[in-house]
Amino acid sequence: MTFNISKVENFSEWYSEILVRAEVTDLRYGVKGFVVIRPWGARIIDKMYRIYESALRATEHSPVIFPSVIPEGNFKKESSHVEGFAPDVFWLEKKQGEDRLALRPTSETAFYDLYKLWIRSYRDLPMRLYQRANVFRNETKATRPLIRSREFYWIESHDAFSTKKEAEAQVQDDINMTEEVMHKIFGVPFLAMKRPEWDKFPGAEYTIGSDSILPDGRIIQQPSTHLISQHFVKAFDLSFKDDKEKDKMPWLTCYGPAMSRILASVISVHGDDNGLVLPYTIAPVQVVIVPIGNDAQVAGRRSQVGDVVEKLRADLMKEYVDVLIDDSDKRVGEKFFYWEMKGVPFRIEVGKKELGDEEVTLFVRDTREKILVKIKDLAETIKDLGAEYDERLIARADEFFASRIVDCSSKVEIKKALDSGKIAKFSFCSCDKDGEKCAEFVEKELQARIMGTLVSDESEMLGVRCQISGKKLGKCPFCGKKAECVVYAGKSY
Amino acid sequence: MTFNISKVENFSEWYSEILVRAEVTDLRYGVKGFVVIRPWGARIIDKMYRIYESALRATEHSPVIFPSVIPEGNFKKESSHVEGFAPDVFWLEKKQGEDRLALRPTSETAFYDLYKLWIRSYRDLPMRLYQRANVFRNETKATRPLIRSREFYWIESHDAFSTKKEAEAQVQDDINMTEEVMHKIFGVPFLAMKRPEWDKFPGAEYTIGSDSILPDGRIIQQPSTHLISQHFVKAFDLSFKDDKEKDKMPWLTCYGPAMSRILASVISVHGDDNGLVLPYTIAPVQVVIVPIGNDAQVAGRRSQVGDVVEKLRADLMKEYVDVLIDDSDKRVGEKFFYWEMKGVPFRIEVGKKELGDEEVTLFVRDTREKILVKIKDLAETIKDLGAEYDERLIARADEFFASRIVDCSSKVEIKKALDSGKIAKFSFCSCDKDGEKCAEFVEKELQARIMGTLVSDESEMLGVRCQISGKKLGKCPFCGKKAECVVYAGKSY
Repeated sequence: MTFNISKVENFSEWYSEILVRAEVTDLRYGVKGFVVIRPWGARIIDKMYRIYESALRATEHSPVIFPSVIPEGNFKKESSHVEGFAPDVFWLEKKQGEDRLALRPTSETAFYDLYKLWIRSYRDLPMRLYQRANVFRNETKATRPLIRSREFYWIESHDAFSTKKEAEAQVQDDINMTEEVMHKIFGVPFLAMKRPEWDKFPGAEYTIGSDSILPDGRIIQQPSTHLISQHFVKAFDLSFKDDKEKDKMPWLTCYGPAMSRILASVISVHGDDNGLVLPYTIAPVQVVIVPIGNDAQVAGRRSQVGDVVEKLRADLMKEYVDVLIDDSDKRVGEKFFYWEMKGVPFRIEVGKKELGDEEVTLFVRDTREKILVKIKDLAETIKDLGAEYDERLIARADEFFASRIVDCSSKVEIKKALDSGKIAKFSFCSCDKDGEKCAEFVEKELQARIMGTLVSDESEMLGVRCQISGKKLGKCPFCGKKAECVVYAGKSY
Repeated sequence: MTFNISKVENFSEWYSEILVRAEVTDLRYGVKGFVVIRPWGARIIDKMYRIYESALRATEHSPVIFPSVIPEGNFKKESSHVEGFAPDVFWLEKKQGEDRLALRPTSETAFYDLYKLWIRSYRDLPMRLYQRANVFRNETKATRPLIRSREFYWIESHDAFSTKKEAEAQVQDDINMTEEVMHKIFGVPFLAMKRPEWDKFPGAEYTIGSDSILPDGRIIQQPSTHLISQHFVKAFDLSFKDDKEKDKMPWLTCYGPAMSRILASVISVHGDDNGLVLPYTIAPVQVVIVPIGNDAQVAGRRSQVGDVVEKLRADLMKEYVDVLIDDSDKRVGEKFFYWEMKGVPFRIEVGKKELGDEEVTLFVRDTREKILVKIKDLAETIKDLGAEYDERLIARADEFFASRIVDCSSKVEIKKALDSGKIAKFSFCSCDKDGEKCAEFVEKELQARIMGTLVSDESEMLGVRCQISGKKLGKCPFCGKKAECVVYAGKSY
């Protein structure tokens, strides 16, 4: 009945097993790479969506709903985009007399076709639209539930501006949103990486990816934001009249946080050997109340214990705490185990003993401590403890992440870092086309990927208190040329 | 600049035009039957989804996320289901070595494949799961935006029970939810109709549809709920052990409210010749504040008028009212027109005159009255007026609907009713297979559809104060046989 798999020593098994045991996903749907997300997972994702959508609306983004299908003609308008995405596309069987249709792998080519009609004048700008959508990619590599699926659940925002400056400010705002939501609310630290030339989004002028790390040291790519190339803008023939009636080309950005994949990070980063540990803010159940003793179990809610339990629930609900009473006929120990494994932050035990006292025992999931809490202050206390809980989770995740970044100055050091599940940071010849050869060497010989250059030295902002070694650039450890940048590299699945 | 199309006299033009002018949808996506839903439409749909999902969760439904694709093998397990849906299916181009995949037209065959694994014992029941999803149907008839599209946006709940009695109670609960949400919140009245044998959901034992009416008298089908046939249960080999360890077959129901189509009804039912009229509860903007006078326009928010406007906004936001200040440089008259056409329930005008008084002028969209409201009571007053506003909309919709139902006792009367855009109610031979011939006659000769029999005589509950003519059954006006039921018939697109 116990869970008890070591996350650090055997992450892969831990991850597969917790998804089953905590009823997050079900992999038995019978189609490669398509996963069923069960209620516990769907409820977390729903909370994540609501928070992300609120953040987008607060920054002047409006929702929109585009079709899931993209006509082949539109899809193929921008050559590097086609080249990048075509192998990944699921096509629909063509209907006679109609265009062949792609299931969207991403929606630039759907949005821009309408932006051509919607953007006429500088008064129409900025335009900031997003959609909550399922997208489809025919992954040829091995799929992994929530991490790499052939259908996944994301938000994509597609923004348009009059000037490049505004567009670049949006790219920075997108990074800030990843920081504010994914890191500061969901507790997933990351590095904002400007991708090397050869690894940018097909059709972008540049791409800022955010890379997080799994407990086994593998890199997982989280939301990216892109400054779209003007080639793309031309391909869709976008233009607007400025305030002097002159024709101008708009500047475009896009941003794509994937809820299902962020959930994979949330699960991996915070979980422990007893199962899930969910941030208080996004836990579907934040407090579970377990009535204890025969009185509670037999007579249920009409008993004295039952009355107290009902009162506690009402108090908590009034303060918008998501609370559940487990009055099933399972044994108490079984209930404790079950809700711990599911990652519920707080458990309240109420038995005959508690009836006389004015206190209840609160079990805290991450520290596994028991605290006595006064019943009259319960709701307030829970909210304070919830905030502290999330801060603790974030601090722990940050610490782990920082410990995984290693300054390296030779091939040997880089290999050693990568082989021990760390991110290597080192001087590198170039992130332009020139560096691609060395990147290929890294990929082939070290099975690792050049993640890019850090967007900001404000590493504090990114939650990473790693040792930045200053700006002194050495030589590229692979070709020996003078380095132009400091890059990060890591292994991914 | 004015809108001014007569909804009653020229509904079809009114509907097409208001979708464009109020920026609800855009039909220029270039793929037949696939529509872009613009921010104004997406924001209404989002509010509708939240309300419907809350109602489902309050009745013990949990969210779940199933893949959008269904393997051909599963899709074809139940023969009447295949027969009913196969012509409507979009198939994906088959990948080598993999099953052919359908884009879900509805998800019974996706859910039940997993229900086989999830439902083992009576302890697993009842199981009530729903998903918010896009579904796809290759409509061959003419498509109409939001009403009949090839991709649409709905919720589908799939429930399983130990006994038929519980399942039938769920069907009744589903009808009640349509009443509570679609009618009592969104203001769309309907008739709950038990469908004739020949018109039930493919794979159902019986179907209760809810039929609403458009201003031109056409019937529009809204959420249906179905008791799934035990053939379907057998086809998916579903069974569970009861409390005596005996194998039993579960009873299944499903329910499918489509947000996009309900939005079509909301728009059609409440709108008037000046544009949209949105229920207060689901309007994206509930109150628009328009600053008036040169002072406001030039100096913007730093002016005296601007200060009052900001204070009003803050007061309203504190009470969760969705409020917007229109301080654009458009002319005041243009702003008035624009927000009326968009269906915003309340407009507040603030000019120099209002600065001295402690009152502002409130324009009410549906009645077009102007009311003076004390600034200090504004938020409270708006909420009260908002509730009254919605009640007024519902009453008006109910009245219209009731006036459209006509008791008929002969072919001539039925034809007359149908031809004048009404629903005809009459004695009919049979809603079993026996009646299909007369129904075909109605379809061919009168271009109308037998909607079914009223589920309940509690017509008050359904918001329809029509004259129920008692239970006396006459003869079927088509075959002359003794009638077994009273049916309703109407024309649909």
